[in-house]
Amino acid sequence: MSELTIWTYDWVPEGARGFVRDLRLRWACEEARLPYRVQRIPFDGRESNHLAHQPFGQVPFLSDGELEIFESGAGLLHLSRKSDKLMPRDRAGEAQTLQWMIAALNSIEMVTVPWWFLKMSGDEDNALVGWMGKRLDQLEKLLGDREWLVADRFTAADLLMADVLRVSAVRSFGDRPATEAYVMRATDRSSFRKARADQIAHFEAADEKRTEDQSD
Amino acid sequence: MSELTIWTYDWVPEGARGFVRDLRLRWACEEARLPYRVQRIPFDGRESNHLAHQPFGQVPFLSDGELEIFESGAGLLHLSRKSDKLMPRDRAGEAQTLQWMIAALNSIEMVTVPWWFLKMSGDEDNALVGWMGKRLDQLEKLLGDREWLVADRFTAADLLMADVLRVSAVRSFGDRPATEAYVMRATDRSSFRKARADQIAHFEAADEKRTEDQSD
Repeated sequence: MSELTIWTYDWVPEGARGFVRDLRLRWACEEARLPYRVQRIPFDGRESNHLAHQPFGQVPFLSDGELEIFESGAGLLHLSRKSDKLMPRDRAGEAQTLQWMIAALNSIEMVTVPWWFLKMSGDEDNALVGWMGKRLDQLEKLLGDREWLVADRFTAADLLMADVLRVSAVRSFGDRPATEAYVMRATDRSSFRKARADQIAHFEAADEKRTEDQSD
Repeated sequence: MSELTIWTYDWVPEGARGFVRDLRLRWACEEARLPYRVQRIPFDGRESNHLAHQPFGQVPFLSDGELEIFESGAGLLHLSRKSDKLMPRDRAGEAQTLQWMIAALNSIEMVTVPWWFLKMSGDEDNALVGWMGKRLDQLEKLLGDREWLVADRFTAADLLMADVLRVSAVRSFGDRPATEAYVMRATDRSSFRKARADQIAHFEAADEKRTEDQSD
């Protein structure tokens, strides 16, 4: 069996902990019970020190034996093909999981991340507000009718969609009870809780090391 | 063999012609020589009249026999599995095509579309300008070294990336000769030219029908 390795930064500022996208891959591996290791690349110098592995200087990337894949969405699709816990094996279940994974990345996150970026830049009432509200309303309507996006069961599509929606600014953007309940259902899974706790512990351990380095 | 059908609007305003995303699926089918039909759904009432097929009221969606898939990126991934003209069949080639398709959707288009949206809303100097410049510069550097993104040959990753980059506002954002040459190479392919001409003819034919309806 090939060895799965999730590559992430050695350290990130406290506010980012629990939200770095290696979490998507950790969560998927936990969900599918795929064994994996986590390896560190330096946060300092990230703009240039690992461009050979990730051309935008970001994390995570995934290695699977000698294969290497960047983009958390691509890593997640790669992992999904390894386990029917992440993606049903029938044609319809597979196609629907795929479409909802891409919807999370290209219809929802394509609005929520730029909206959040503008908000963080001090542009609270930005022109993406209306677009984002519309998308989230469409999703709210749909999530009122179903527990999970595909095939009445948790799939990688829910993993990705819930990870996009759980960002607190996005969740608190309007009152959408079905979406809120959906995010709660997904993030209450033991696989999510373990992945999140592991990520936070990973970055906290680096805090301790940073303090030691300074006292040398 | 199952029948591929690309669903798109019956009509769109002139400025959108040549850019509606059914073009991604048309281009892929032309590239892979997969037979397909194009079917129309009404542009008028699009916000609500086909939510059962596309929960965000958008186009395209793809049907393949009884399967139905929305999100152009998902449709393109589905088609890519049908032909090695779109995605190499070896593990590394497949993983790299996948990662670059997701990069086009979630690292490039996630900035370019919201940036364009803000620009169109009259917010020319929006806070996404710096982010977009950085991403396009990273891509420019990479495209200076290679003709195509994956495996020294055209794949669905180039189809998607070139479709994202060919938007004129994006292309004219700074001077990036390698990116410009890349977009030219991709859009000079006969499969792209046919797909684009077919889409424009499809919407032009609806103009004629609209005129007839009005003169009845």
